[in-house]
Amino acid sequence: MKIALEMAEKGIGKVNPNPLVGAVIVKDNRIIGKGYHKTYGGLHAEREALKSCFENPSGATMYVTLEPCCHYGKTPPCVDAIIENGISRVVVGIRDPNPLVGGKGIDKLRKNGIAVVEGVLEAECRSLNTIFFHYIKTKTPYITLKYAMTIDGKIATKTGASRWISGEDSRINVHTDRNTYSAIMVGLNTVISDDPLLNCRLEQGNDPIRIICDTNLKTPLDSKIVKTSVDNKTIIVTKSHDEKLIKLYEDCGCDVLVQESLDNDRIDLRNLVQELGSRGIDSILLEGGSTLAWSALEAGIVDKVQAYISPKIFGGIAKTPVAGKGIDFPDNAIRLSKPKVRYFGEDILLESEVLKCLPE
Amino acid sequence: MKIALEMAEKGIGKVNPNPLVGAVIVKDNRIIGKGYHKTYGGLHAEREALKSCFENPSGATMYVTLEPCCHYGKTPPCVDAIIENGISRVVVGIRDPNPLVGGKGIDKLRKNGIAVVEGVLEAECRSLNTIFFHYIKTKTPYITLKYAMTIDGKIATKTGASRWISGEDSRINVHTDRNTYSAIMVGLNTVISDDPLLNCRLEQGNDPIRIICDTNLKTPLDSKIVKTSVDNKTIIVTKSHDEKLIKLYEDCGCDVLVQESLDNDRIDLRNLVQELGSRGIDSILLEGGSTLAWSALEAGIVDKVQAYISPKIFGGIAKTPVAGKGIDFPDNAIRLSKPKVRYFGEDILLESEVLKCLPE
Repeated sequence: MKIALEMAEKGIGKVNPNPLVGAVIVKDNRIIGKGYHKTYGGLHAEREALKSCFENPSGATMYVTLEPCCHYGKTPPCVDAIIENGISRVVVGIRDPNPLVGGKGIDKLRKNGIAVVEGVLEAECRSLNTIFFHYIKTKTPYITLKYAMTIDGKIATKTGASRWISGEDSRINVHTDRNTYSAIMVGLNTVISDDPLLNCRLEQGNDPIRIICDTNLKTPLDSKIVKTSVDNKTIIVTKSHDEKLIKLYEDCGCDVLVQESLDNDRIDLRNLVQELGSRGIDSILLEGGSTLAWSALEAGIVDKVQAYISPKIFGGIAKTPVAGKGIDFPDNAIRLSKPKVRYFGEDILLESEVLKCLPE
Repeated sequence: MKIALEMAEKGIGKVNPNPLVGAVIVKDNRIIGKGYHKTYGGLHAEREALKSCFENPSGATMYVTLEPCCHYGKTPPCVDAIIENGISRVVVGIRDPNPLVGGKGIDKLRKNGIAVVEGVLEAECRSLNTIFFHYIKTKTPYITLKYAMTIDGKIATKTGASRWISGEDSRINVHTDRNTYSAIMVGLNTVISDDPLLNCRLEQGNDPIRIICDTNLKTPLDSKIVKTSVDNKTIIVTKSHDEKLIKLYEDCGCDVLVQESLDNDRIDLRNLVQELGSRGIDSILLEGGSTLAWSALEAGIVDKVQAYISPKIFGGIAKTPVAGKGIDFPDNAIRLSKPKVRYFGEDILLESEVLKCLPE
């Protein structure tokens, strides 16, 4: 199963919104085939593994990180292939989280006389597909709020300068994450102040879809993002209905998504994530700025927080990672889980899940 | 030596500005005596250990965390006691850091035919006495800037509310540290807004000396600190020369320390730490607020930063741990060492040494 997990990871960035899956086929204590889900729409891991077998898999055991499917999607059911190839035992990491599907693949295998073992390295198999599990259940993207701050809580100096706060190792990890997530979302101010590309600079990495929250459609037409939007998919979310203005962006290659506004001011983010989910976006890295961060937290759409903390002190009155309206009393704080700690060079990365959102 | 280190730790909070020292005497592979430096002015660890022996220590080995002294202080030289008692071998953790003393104790032992081994668990022995090593070399207190902030960098909500940010386990550790440090320093605003006692709430813990930086002598006479200053030593540092006003505080039991001001405004903190050092204060926990934190960092008097980070988000425009003037560009940041991570309940404690202060 560990090998199957390693295989599954090879699909990172290539299969969204499908799950990462790996499979290994063992006969007479030897691995005779292995495979993983390589690209969205391509063969599933089970069929890849069967195809790779260098001897007849009849009577073999298949280790697979996720319950094999039993329905017709882009490819025919994997369960059928397992049965046809005479596999006699299947070891499953975790059941399909979709309540309409979960367990049916396993049932069909058992009905066909195949022994099934469940729950092997289940936690690892779940953790591998945090995004998929979230998306399949909610139909909305898994959203991670990411920021880099100094140990005194600043995301910029008092003059607004922010390059660089975190070290190179941290920045490389951000690109690793950009490869994992389907999309990056930023607010208009971040586009104006940083003029970022928001691409993935890893070799063979996938550029995520760029999403700009731009209430009044003021993204500079000469910004790097707009200028590269023919090649890198870009969605500008706005409440503006100005057809002429919208066409200017569309002519540049941007996709303009007009959303209803809350209180005639801000974009309705809950509605937005439903819409983005329906477009197949299963995950979003929310990279700035502090006003959008608060709006997203307040709307209850943030699932995880990633805080890169750099051992530097800026002092002064300067921007912090989350601004917006904020709360009045500590007891009303948005609560997160106990942070997991990771090290990148001199920096510390704290990762927490959002536990409690604000009362409605 | 590990046992000697454990013995030494028993003196925490009781011996400042003396070092923590432990000693163990071993004969025929059995411990026949052990001791530690218990109180300032009391017997040194070596003499305590010799006194505790239940058989003649002649021919035994002494393990001691710090080089035995060879000069007359509050007690006669330990080297003499070691020689007189016929100890044949001394294992030393680390040399006395005082360049005028270091090595002389060891030399005298060797001249008297005693075998000396040096540098056993040296790093642990140094780390145990970070404060003492700093103080003996610089004659100024070792200063730790401590704060508790949310994962979004706030030390209060936008309304100024700050109770509580960190969890109970973190707050207990603060009291453990208060027991270790000779003094706590805060700015006037912290006294006004929190009206703290700044005592140590551990059983048998030592209350540190309270130091208030109060440029214009405005500490409320009915504040808890002033009202308890007969029992708990309190130093108010000010640039005010108003004799009448000063007497009011002195009548309450406070010690008023008049300091020259920098640019006719702020207290000269470098001068202040010299003065506090000359009064035997070897360590200060700097507990707030953010203006004083910046002034201390800018003055280059901060040795360590302790950032308790709680997995909560306040949002809004709110206070951060370090304010003051601040720097303009990230390259000019005050740099700290890679943080050491400790866990207290849900909170994370990051501890870093100050590496680079601002250019003069």
